[in-house]
Amino acid sequence: MCMMNHHYEELEESYLFAGIADRIRRYSAAHPQQRILRLGIGDVSQPLTESVIQALHEAVDDQAVKKTFHGYMPECGSEDLRKTIAAYYRKKGCNIGEQEVFVSSGASDELGDILHLFDRSIPVLLSQPAYPAYADANIMDGRKIIYLWAEEGNGFRVFPPKEEMTSLIYICSPNNPTGAVYEKELLQAWVDYAIRTDSIILFDAAYEAYIADEDIPHSIFELRGAKDCAIEICSLSKTAGFTGTRCGYTVIPEKLTREGMNLNTMWIRNRTTRTNGVSYILQKGAEAVFSEKGQKEVKNLIGIYRHNAKIFMRALDEAGLWYIGGRNAPYIWVRCPNGMSSWDYFDFLLEKAQIVGTPGSGFGPAGEGYIRFSMFADAKDIEEAGSRIIQMELK
Amino acid sequence: MCMMNHHYEELEESYLFAGIADRIRRYSAAHPQQRILRLGIGDVSQPLTESVIQALHEAVDDQAVKKTFHGYMPECGSEDLRKTIAAYYRKKGCNIGEQEVFVSSGASDELGDILHLFDRSIPVLLSQPAYPAYADANIMDGRKIIYLWAEEGNGFRVFPPKEEMTSLIYICSPNNPTGAVYEKELLQAWVDYAIRTDSIILFDAAYEAYIADEDIPHSIFELRGAKDCAIEICSLSKTAGFTGTRCGYTVIPEKLTREGMNLNTMWIRNRTTRTNGVSYILQKGAEAVFSEKGQKEVKNLIGIYRHNAKIFMRALDEAGLWYIGGRNAPYIWVRCPNGMSSWDYFDFLLEKAQIVGTPGSGFGPAGEGYIRFSMFADAKDIEEAGSRIIQMELK
Repeated sequence: MCMMNHHYEELEESYLFAGIADRIRRYSAAHPQQRILRLGIGDVSQPLTESVIQALHEAVDDQAVKKTFHGYMPECGSEDLRKTIAAYYRKKGCNIGEQEVFVSSGASDELGDILHLFDRSIPVLLSQPAYPAYADANIMDGRKIIYLWAEEGNGFRVFPPKEEMTSLIYICSPNNPTGAVYEKELLQAWVDYAIRTDSIILFDAAYEAYIADEDIPHSIFELRGAKDCAIEICSLSKTAGFTGTRCGYTVIPEKLTREGMNLNTMWIRNRTTRTNGVSYILQKGAEAVFSEKGQKEVKNLIGIYRHNAKIFMRALDEAGLWYIGGRNAPYIWVRCPNGMSSWDYFDFLLEKAQIVGTPGSGFGPAGEGYIRFSMFADAKDIEEAGSRIIQMELK
Repeated sequence: MCMMNHHYEELEESYLFAGIADRIRRYSAAHPQQRILRLGIGDVSQPLTESVIQALHEAVDDQAVKKTFHGYMPECGSEDLRKTIAAYYRKKGCNIGEQEVFVSSGASDELGDILHLFDRSIPVLLSQPAYPAYADANIMDGRKIIYLWAEEGNGFRVFPPKEEMTSLIYICSPNNPTGAVYEKELLQAWVDYAIRTDSIILFDAAYEAYIADEDIPHSIFELRGAKDCAIEICSLSKTAGFTGTRCGYTVIPEKLTREGMNLNTMWIRNRTTRTNGVSYILQKGAEAVFSEKGQKEVKNLIGIYRHNAKIFMRALDEAGLWYIGGRNAPYIWVRCPNGMSSWDYFDFLLEKAQIVGTPGSGFGPAGEGYIRFSMFADAKDIEEAGSRIIQMELK
């Protein structure tokens, strides 16, 4: 008998963001006059849009008066918001019912929580480089992780393995950190593989709103058979600037079953036992994102970051650096020049050009030799960083 | 190898609240002219207070402007709110540091999430009757539950068992559903037992603000040695009407270790991996609860429910019914008269007096023969329900 969950001891300490902060601090102390251009962190910089702000204020007012006050919310989400999100899916051509939509506090929260549905003996198929929490949340549960390496040669996407095994499969498209996107055929191959092997795909669609190309799926449910093998986890963090406001949603098809257990029913039971629902105020704010006006506003919002990406890609092209992402994603993944390691190039950029990126090796060994730039940064910083990279490379 | 978490199959369906709703529906359909007095559900009825509303509006405004916009929040809570809550504890005489306070989305969420720190082989000591989620969250994890029966004879509190075993111990004081409170000596006996047996106490303090008697501890950390064996989970739901707004807090002492693992450090790792923090807006609202003005307001707010309890207790006294709770808790736990079962008395009250309570047997077999009344109901309903009970009993 054991008191504690000893799988926590198997986690490696992550020095990624602490390491970055530390280096910036030291550089700034030595060069206090230099302005640092921060393209490191994947956090948004633009405020919430007008419709959302108005809806939030109205919801706060509702909570001030007995007649309109809301106590406990339905654990799986308010009926209105679930309906609104289901309609959003139907507009994308996905036949999703409101009972298949669950309102969440955001994708990060949900990506950890959803694992409770699965046995701890099931192996996890994970592509590398990856958002570190995918692996860490599974290590904490004691699950075995099988890594698939994404590389330049395959555009930093991974293909279903030859070995046919039942597993929990993570797919993030558009991808964090690489900005790579999975086209229809490749996603279909994954859906077919999952059905063949009785696997479940956890599809992270947090960046779906950044897709510009028409033939790239926004949702796994655009694919044939996905309702038999996939859960989609999405968030308003990057779509509508909700990183610090918090609200997201998860789709679990009503017909998704494994080993005689229905995953939608299990998740209802999980939510009703383990939460008391998402704040009424936040759900009202989230609902406003999907209104006609709200959708226009977030299109403009995303346009700002997309413009950043265009400017930065142009600079990279001029500098002659290899990269992917940016076109359908708010991240640009750049090969470090001259065979430099991720951290060497990080140091080089900080010292020579006062630019901060995120070392690719922080997303796993498959990211070594690359660096991630976030287009959520300030437009001025993006532009200036682009010019400095051009100057350095053409010198 | 198993794909799904089959422990979900061990859960029993709970028909408690669905059963209540069903019976009310049928009664109303047959007697559409009758007004039903709802003292069943433990949800608050009063709106948020002025300071909280103002703080929420200000926080929404912050999110509307780039200069004051907040993106990702610290995963363990904003520095300001953690400091504020630590100061609140120090005012109660508990030496709690801000690093020991974690901001949460509420007690329900946290009571499930915190279990991740513990191995699934550790047994759980749980008193009955109890809030059903305590047992269900552990059944879903596959933990063995050892029930201690609370009874009239011991004032519906339970004492440490003779058998000395390492376990996870739930204590909820003031108690839901019984309204019983644990006095200092009894809580100290539990703390001593936990230290002796290397156990951990999960102390649910969600109703601490309802304590009127001076010698009843508000926090487990008022007891000697509690920092070596306890985690406290608290919420603003009942203190400040946050049931639908959502914000709570958890205290994990920095020195709390088991099997060489530090629980505070583990929880930091859990939060940074599995969440992106609680909404900036909600944390600002929560902070306002602890301001001088905010504290006065919530005292008034709680005074409303406390007044309800006084009125209702007076009626029960007059009717000659046995009960506990009410004095230090928003719940009153009444013995069903004439040896009736919980559901029989429920039906009797609904049909003869149009009063809705919550059958005690819904909180486990130890609750059979009792009924819970919630003082969060409307004052008019409470008063009217009291008069009808007197009339019925004195007939």
